Amino acid sequence: MLVGKIGEFGLLERIAAMLPKRSAGVIEGIGDDVAVLDVSGPEYLLATCDIQVEGVHFTREAITPYQLGRRVAAINVSDIAAKGGDPRWALVSLALPGDIEVGWVEELYRGMREETALAGASVVGGNLSGMKSAVVVDFTLLGVVAPERFVRRSTARAGDAVLLTGAAGESRAGLELIRRPDMKLSSSVRRRLTQRHLCPQPRLAEGRLLAHSGLVTAMMDVSDGVVGDLLHICEASGKGAEIETASLSISPELSEAALAAGADPLEWALSGGEDYELLFTAAPEDVPFLKKMVLEATGTACTQIGVICTGAGVVLRLADGTLLDPAAKGWDHFGR
Amino acid sequence: MLVGKIGEFGLLERIAAMLPKRSAGVIEGIGDDVAVLDVSGPEYLLATCDIQVEGVHFTREAITPYQLGRRVAAINVSDIAAKGGDPRWALVSLALPGDIEVGWVEELYRGMREETALAGASVVGGNLSGMKSAVVVDFTLLGVVAPERFVRRSTARAGDAVLLTGAAGESRAGLELIRRPDMKLSSSVRRRLTQRHLCPQPRLAEGRLLAHSGLVTAMMDVSDGVVGDLLHICEASGKGAEIETASLSISPELSEAALAAGADPLEWALSGGEDYELLFTAAPEDVPFLKKMVLEATGTACTQIGVICTGAGVVLRLADGTLLDPAAKGWDHFGR
Repeated sequence: MLVGKIGEFGLLERIAAMLPKRSAGVIEGIGDDVAVLDVSGPEYLLATCDIQVEGVHFTREAITPYQLGRRVAAINVSDIAAKGGDPRWALVSLALPGDIEVGWVEELYRGMREETALAGASVVGGNLSGMKSAVVVDFTLLGVVAPERFVRRSTARAGDAVLLTGAAGESRAGLELIRRPDMKLSSSVRRRLTQRHLCPQPRLAEGRLLAHSGLVTAMMDVSDGVVGDLLHICEASGKGAEIETASLSISPELSEAALAAGADPLEWALSGGEDYELLFTAAPEDVPFLKKMVLEATGTACTQIGVICTGAGVVLRLADGTLLDPAAKGWDHFGR
Repeated sequence: MLVGKIGEFGLLERIAAMLPKRSAGVIEGIGDDVAVLDVSGPEYLLATCDIQVEGVHFTREAITPYQLGRRVAAINVSDIAAKGGDPRWALVSLALPGDIEVGWVEELYRGMREETALAGASVVGGNLSGMKSAVVVDFTLLGVVAPERFVRRSTARAGDAVLLTGAAGESRAGLELIRRPDMKLSSSVRRRLTQRHLCPQPRLAEGRLLAHSGLVTAMMDVSDGVVGDLLHICEASGKGAEIETASLSISPELSEAALAAGADPLEWALSGGEDYELLFTAAPEDVPFLKKMVLEATGTACTQIGVICTGAGVVLRLADGTLLDPAAKGWDHFGR
């Protein structure tokens, strides 16, 4: 059986099955985006990493090294944000061909330095290697969180509201614009959407506020898409969920790009991925307070997009009341 | 200026110059193999990573996935060992082509699981990605060390003895045998030397004992070669060093392989690299006690191979008393 056949999540399951379920000091291990570790201090240690591969996650034509640096750091900050934590220290492993300009590498580090500094963290170590064909950046971020504050993905309850910070889909639209530079769109729309893809803004302050409220029952950041990541929350929690598609905010820019691309903006919002928004659950009665608190402190709107229910899987409730399985025909790339 | 021109250490210097010198909670940062971090707990956190790239550090023909897993874990355990620390948790980032067998990946993880378990640690997280052309494994290892125990590389003193656990050079010989499978050598010698290269044995117990003795003034593990890594200690400490070449232990197997390869076994011992032995310094009067302590507890012999002196750089004292600059003609690949 080949890796390409079984896919990322299939492989992840096989690997997880091989590794010890419980180890000393491990509060959350394999299976979550972030490891939560007990270092016998006042706070838990958070550890996460993300490997970005040229030709898979980025091309040197479409992203500047500075943007790439910001992006790889931001993606990891987003994971720490989803735990309600504070980023602290980063390690960077970099493999790169010998024919890269030193200035390119310096710009990459400038981007990582700035994004980590914005998050209150710093790069404290790493490793360099040659590599024939591609640039590979693996960014490991360590953070801390108070034991009573951190939020799991496995603790959503039936009846909880499902909320999303900001809006999803624009990152996917930006990716489409990068892949199809000939697509006809105003330069301001193009700039906004590609920026959303290239330079995600991790929701660090929002994550901290939400976790510290003590009212959020489960949380993760949206990297695989709203449906895909809600499925992760559902599976970890042993629950199902319903998404009210009409509640998803679709910006005029997203609509415009989808129209030009011949795509469905709702599909991008539901399954586009790499949004780095926070997806979280809370009791319905706490929703107004949470939305107000986050909006007032950060300017970020949170939208209720659905509910957690008993059962399993994620279904879509369309505007006309029809229920749709996102894995059904026409939506099958939603699945995992 | 191209990366290939400036080299790993030149690039590292440029990067280090860009990053903050002092950050909150950072006891040792960029410039050491291991970051030492203050997590406000009873112990310091240690963090290190090492990226292994197919075609650069290994080929799938020459190493089994199980051996590769052992090796990437062992290399990182060795770094923690050189700080006198205890490995705890690992994160693994893996990029790999879709045409790899799932069984290959499982064997890789089995190797990592076993080597981390031997070190008292476990794999708690990571990240998977596709990659067109090569397998890339980045292994991040976290450990802990008592603040009063950890050993820096920057605190060697003039007059200190320089010691080495075990012996260096066999890993380089093993690499030569892997590159030249047609070389005529007995199968037992071949097996021993290739094993030394493919499956390094990190000196974890030795590192702990040495650090806990409180008598070791500086320590690091040998990855770049004895001369290269002693230079790192010297530069960090603002000192120089002299290596007594006759003191270096050259096994019959090493001699045999060097003879067959037309190489100098002493050169391999001095500059071969990837030995993962511990190189450390201590006051001359503490040397007998340290050697006895390590030998009795672990069976590992430590050898004094030189002395730290004022000045800068590393010189070799040959058996006939001649002093030789390892960077001089004929030895120029010693340099960094």
